[in-house]
Amino acid sequence: MRYNKAVISSPATLANFGPGFDSFGLCLDSPRDTVTIQLRQPGRREVKVSGWSGIPTDPEKNTASYAAMRLADMCGCEEYGFSMTIKKGMKPGSGIGSSAASSVGGALAMATLMGVRDESLILEAAAMGEELIAGSRHFDNVAAALHGGFTVVSDARKRTILRIKPPSFQIVVVLPEISVETRKAREVLPKSVPLSDAVSNLSMAAGMVHSMMKRDARAVGEYLDDTLSVPYRKKLVPGFDEVRKSALDSGALGVSLGGSGPAVFAITLENASKIKQAMVRTFLESSGLESESFITVPGEGAIVEKVS
Amino acid sequence: MRYNKAVISSPATLANFGPGFDSFGLCLDSPRDTVTIQLRQPGRREVKVSGWSGIPTDPEKNTASYAAMRLADMCGCEEYGFSMTIKKGMKPGSGIGSSAASSVGGALAMATLMGVRDESLILEAAAMGEELIAGSRHFDNVAAALHGGFTVVSDARKRTILRIKPPSFQIVVVLPEISVETRKAREVLPKSVPLSDAVSNLSMAAGMVHSMMKRDARAVGEYLDDTLSVPYRKKLVPGFDEVRKSALDSGALGVSLGGSGPAVFAITLENASKIKQAMVRTFLESSGLESESFITVPGEGAIVEKVS
Repeated sequence: MRYNKAVISSPATLANFGPGFDSFGLCLDSPRDTVTIQLRQPGRREVKVSGWSGIPTDPEKNTASYAAMRLADMCGCEEYGFSMTIKKGMKPGSGIGSSAASSVGGALAMATLMGVRDESLILEAAAMGEELIAGSRHFDNVAAALHGGFTVVSDARKRTILRIKPPSFQIVVVLPEISVETRKAREVLPKSVPLSDAVSNLSMAAGMVHSMMKRDARAVGEYLDDTLSVPYRKKLVPGFDEVRKSALDSGALGVSLGGSGPAVFAITLENASKIKQAMVRTFLESSGLESESFITVPGEGAIVEKVS
Repeated sequence: MRYNKAVISSPATLANFGPGFDSFGLCLDSPRDTVTIQLRQPGRREVKVSGWSGIPTDPEKNTASYAAMRLADMCGCEEYGFSMTIKKGMKPGSGIGSSAASSVGGALAMATLMGVRDESLILEAAAMGEELIAGSRHFDNVAAALHGGFTVVSDARKRTILRIKPPSFQIVVVLPEISVETRKAREVLPKSVPLSDAVSNLSMAAGMVHSMMKRDARAVGEYLDDTLSVPYRKKLVPGFDEVRKSALDSGALGVSLGGSGPAVFAITLENASKIKQAMVRTFLESSGLESESFITVPGEGAIVEKVS
């Protein structure tokens, strides 16, 4: 090990961004998890979590420490010990990439201690942490959390990640007080979809990449629709259609589900507060759900805040 | 009518380009159809075709004249007559957008006579010409033939077309001596596809748009694969897998079907002749098919060659 201690700030992300099911991710400026790792004598491994209750502290069951250990495995490091502290800045199971934030934080923390800079290794280890929770190894959240901005998993098998700087816009995120487990959100998806829906989504996905690269926020909003997952998953989010309409009526450029939900997000160039209020009020009025909500912007990826 | 005579050169195109089924189109520099329109006394309408036999010369059944008349209809012009000459530069039913070339040529010819410059009208009329042959109104070939370069029908309902200047590369096109009717090529497609294939295609489509905008020909080749149509349609093209392999073994960056086939094309930065020879030889050896073949590059769209 090259260092003794590292502190990582790792962001929330919106996976399945618009038409990019299992492929697109947008990094948020906030909220963020803070993962601190401290080197200990070999064999000692402990995890503490603050900011949220019910998260496992067994190092083999916690996503952050699990990702950290897999990173160490991949680098051939066996003799080490650590204590890790995870300060959760976001609500797990809400569709804003909580487990990805912790996984990326853990993997980057261990990589920093070891002096490892290979981003593909860090990404792979983080995806293993995600897999522990989600049941399958997906890269859309972890890629966005590690690299920041807008990311596209353009070839999952080859681990090809495209990194695109998004235009400037505001993001309104509303988290209704229900939890959607990633595993369950997968179960509601059909095994096959109409060819016409597949064509519609690939066309919109092409439009989304074009809009991001042209830095055209209005067009990003226009291409936020999806036919592959949102029509099925929105059933797990009572009031989604009404909330979506309230956001658009208040001037939002586009609305979709964050990850596998229940997060609903809207993007806008103005009136973010008004849109947020409308969405929160509509959740309450249409389905009796209280919500947390916040406004943020596209953000940078995970950063090493301190190393010593 | 503002003019008496117009001569239009309208290019071949590769629709369904790679993963962009029903959405992506690439304009070829050659071959091209030449459509000449000459104003006549009202009511007289005649069509002549050279360069290929068996193409209808009834003005209501020929794609070029049909598109021209629909353009006139949309502009509210009723009292007119014309004679149209279509010099076919390409083989119909071969997957390189023969009917789109003629449709765009016809629509642009009439628009030129009338002094109409609204590209959305020309596109719509051309798509009507396509519909006459294909049975459904698709914009992927006509958009590429009208605008040139690489085009994306990102929202078919709203007729949103993205226009992207492609990088420089060579295109080897091989046309085996079989014909695939567009209608039949649609019939072999499944009504629904695995969700995983839909995700794979949208990811590759995103990668293709990114590669085109980054002007990265190698990446364009890497994203040429498709899971939505080629696996089904290649059964109509005996020897496709072998021909594809022969092109890749000879250094091609990527290979796919042109339109609904039987055209098979490869893109490359070098050794285009060698690749062409390998593909032609492999068609012959693997399935006994003779082929026409040519080498071209991405091209400009339809142009007005003369107007008087």
